[in-house]
Amino acid sequence: MIGFTGCTLDRADNLRLDPAAIAELAASPHARLLSLAGTDPELDGEGRLIWSALPAAPALSALIFLGLRGGAASFAPLVPIDQSRPAYAVFRLIEMMAPEEAALWGTARSLIAWHGRHGFCANCGAATEPFRAGWGRKCSACEAQHFPRVDPVVIMLAEHRGRVLLGRQPQYPKGRYSALAGFVEPGESIEEAVAREFAEEAGITVSNVRYVASQPWPFPGQLMIACIAEAEDDALSIDFTELEDAMWVSRAGVEAAFRGDRQAPFLAPPPFAIAHSLLRAWLEGSEPLAPGAPRN
Amino acid sequence: MIGFTGCTLDRADNLRLDPAAIAELAASPHARLLSLAGTDPELDGEGRLIWSALPAAPALSALIFLGLRGGAASFAPLVPIDQSRPAYAVFRLIEMMAPEEAALWGTARSLIAWHGRHGFCANCGAATEPFRAGWGRKCSACEAQHFPRVDPVVIMLAEHRGRVLLGRQPQYPKGRYSALAGFVEPGESIEEAVAREFAEEAGITVSNVRYVASQPWPFPGQLMIACIAEAEDDALSIDFTELEDAMWVSRAGVEAAFRGDRQAPFLAPPPFAIAHSLLRAWLEGSEPLAPGAPRN
Repeated sequence: MIGFTGCTLDRADNLRLDPAAIAELAASPHARLLSLAGTDPELDGEGRLIWSALPAAPALSALIFLGLRGGAASFAPLVPIDQSRPAYAVFRLIEMMAPEEAALWGTARSLIAWHGRHGFCANCGAATEPFRAGWGRKCSACEAQHFPRVDPVVIMLAEHRGRVLLGRQPQYPKGRYSALAGFVEPGESIEEAVAREFAEEAGITVSNVRYVASQPWPFPGQLMIACIAEAEDDALSIDFTELEDAMWVSRAGVEAAFRGDRQAPFLAPPPFAIAHSLLRAWLEGSEPLAPGAPRN
Repeated sequence: MIGFTGCTLDRADNLRLDPAAIAELAASPHARLLSLAGTDPELDGEGRLIWSALPAAPALSALIFLGLRGGAASFAPLVPIDQSRPAYAVFRLIEMMAPEEAALWGTARSLIAWHGRHGFCANCGAATEPFRAGWGRKCSACEAQHFPRVDPVVIMLAEHRGRVLLGRQPQYPKGRYSALAGFVEPGESIEEAVAREFAEEAGITVSNVRYVASQPWPFPGQLMIACIAEAEDDALSIDFTELEDAMWVSRAGVEAAFRGDRQAPFLAPPPFAIAHSLLRAWLEGSEPLAPGAPRN
């Protein structure tokens, strides 16, 4: 299972524009509210999210409607977010969570982060207010509607004669290498973004770009699109403004990293990162990954 | 070739943060400026974009740096945009253009549209100014940096016993049916978005979602992610707030539509739309599509 996927909640998006229905769901004794410490998840001893009852007559503008399960509604609180808190501060908790639990928390975290950066209207500068049960903001002046941002990012391996290219960013933990990545820009396809990023960051030319899998990433709201490509040559020209290092790693090297060998050439990315799934798919020769079962 | 892909310009993104380099490129007699009528492309008799020389000492804040070819820079003017002009008003021109020309114009059009909606800072409400050679805006007050938005959208076919599901939106031309589509939301993978959209819009359950191809779509700035899935059943429950109609179409029906038969069950989507490429890949049994060659 790929990290941050597999949530089994029905998003019931048709209810988002129905404040009366949301109010009724929030007033039900079956409604539940996600417990957060700041924006971090609160977990029980088995790594499951903790939920509480909603307060009586909650302010609906301070709630995000996450969805339904068996007719009962799940909400997240629209809390302030500390934008300076680094993503890795919460990784230890994410490692304790099942992917479908992380998916639910990640949805809330992405929405909270988006609200935190969108208190004003990009179109006219006036204040905005939440609407659509937390899935949008509306301008109080020009009435422009704004929707949560999802930024597509390509994350990719290049293969050359049985080795794959991995890179290291300065902020990574000691020894960690991972797949190269970059934002998809306006005016390019996924395949073109992969080729451009490899050319920019590593100076290599690739062909035969294949999609492997995807993952939502809640820091703050990316769609990670994992691909594999073939490199024409293994000579690297590293862009040191983006990467601290890059290197070709053999199959044996990746296997050693996954085993956690002390002699492995790098520290593997954590299981909840799609780079982990991508490397495993490459090792197993099983890409593209079988997609998760549809929800509900 | 998939519409709006195949641009051969080097984006040279490393130059965007170097105003002196951009000024030097703009001062060169080899620099060229995209000719636009409003935001529509101006075309020569062969459907190619028209370019003009840059004015002497141009205001760099009114230019978007599109990239380099052979050391010469291409720019687009950062013009106002009529947000109410419907996308289909320019489709006749796009049909005349080669995909790589449409890709270049589409890049400019997406950036112009984004600037037009982002004159103010979503974080604090103050005015923003272009930076990064047109590839971003910076807040004059809180210094927040904002980057062009690319919204991932899934566009997809469901297959059931040799037939595919097509839908019709009210604003389509008479007779037109196309692949269903919807925005990827925070907290879901591509595969999950496909399953959710089929459930919401057509009431069907799908499995085995496969990625086929992708396309940038400049109205105003989507990344279209084309997929094929298998439907468990062909009973439909259409969401008439999203679709005017949906129907299953046989292989013979799709072939007739592509031939332009008067008796075809629907009017095919235009060649520059990825729905066209997706249907053709399904007909030819060739999905996933071979990706375009990497640029440069």
